[in-house]
Amino acid sequence: MEKDNLRKELKVSAIENGTVIDHIPSNNVFQVIKILNLDEVDNQILFGTNLESQKMGKKGIIKVRNKYFASDEINKIALVAPTATLIVIKNFEVAEKKKVAVPDKVEKFIKCFNPNCITNHENIPTRFYVIDKTDLKLSCHYCEKITAKNNMTFMP
Amino acid sequence: MEKDNLRKELKVSAIENGTVIDHIPSNNVFQVIKILNLDEVDNQILFGTNLESQKMGKKGIIKVRNKYFASDEINKIALVAPTATLIVIKNFEVAEKKKVAVPDKVEKFIKCFNPNCITNHENIPTRFYVIDKTDLKLSCHYCEKITAKNNMTFMP
Repeated sequence: MEKDNLRKELKVSAIENGTVIDHIPSNNVFQVIKILNLDEVDNQILFGTNLESQKMGKKGIIKVRNKYFASDEINKIALVAPTATLIVIKNFEVAEKKKVAVPDKVEKFIKCFNPNCITNHENIPTRFYVIDKTDLKLSCHYCEKITAKNNMTFMP
Repeated sequence: MEKDNLRKELKVSAIENGTVIDHIPSNNVFQVIKILNLDEVDNQILFGTNLESQKMGKKGIIKVRNKYFASDEINKIALVAPTATLIVIKNFEVAEKKKVAVPDKVEKFIKCFNPNCITNHENIPTRFYVIDKTDLKLSCHYCEKITAKNNMTFMP
């Protein structure tokens, strides 16, 4: 009976050492993968999307074996997955658990909303200062225009 | 002791009903996801990449809950994952198991190698006839040039 229950629970197995990113909005799992370049690493990775979550209805989860992320690296995902929790696993135990936090600066992976901005015409990586972390407003380093949540697009 | 062994094995859990795509080359898991549009479905999905495989060294696996694929849909992935095995799961049991097969025709997701081809200048989906399934050679319906494995690029 217990075995049956285990089998019916669609879950992503435990890892011994590494990083778990939990509570990702289901629609944004692939953006998170892209932002963290997980499609290009050699580490073992498990992903789940559209998993049931009591808190969120549906959620995504990513488990990366034997990899730890620097804060500024992981915080980039706060832009697409503000609900995400970062869990550091060591020897199957939770060594650290924290919420991701919107960073002060954002580089490269978001497009400037202003069609006339130099970053949309020359091969210059975008660069923004986050001026509102709650409503997500980014001020462009080059043209000073504000790119906000509702007009934010991600570079491929 | 048995529990410990289970925990140390990084594996993707069982599904009750649905499709498992196993033995995907690790580097091509995200291409398979893209080809099958799995980044846009509401089904629960589990993926693993860089998993250990006796046969392949490293492999990827994708499990999609409550979804079955038509042959021509699934065979598209043979172009990037010729080693893939398709397993249909019903009530936790293997109901069907087969290798993917390179299809006779390929539409849309591969770019024509010929820079002068109309599909590279106008908004026309590409269309190829597979003239060699072993070495993967595709003949373009429009310009008749051959796109082969070593110059095949996938549409984003």
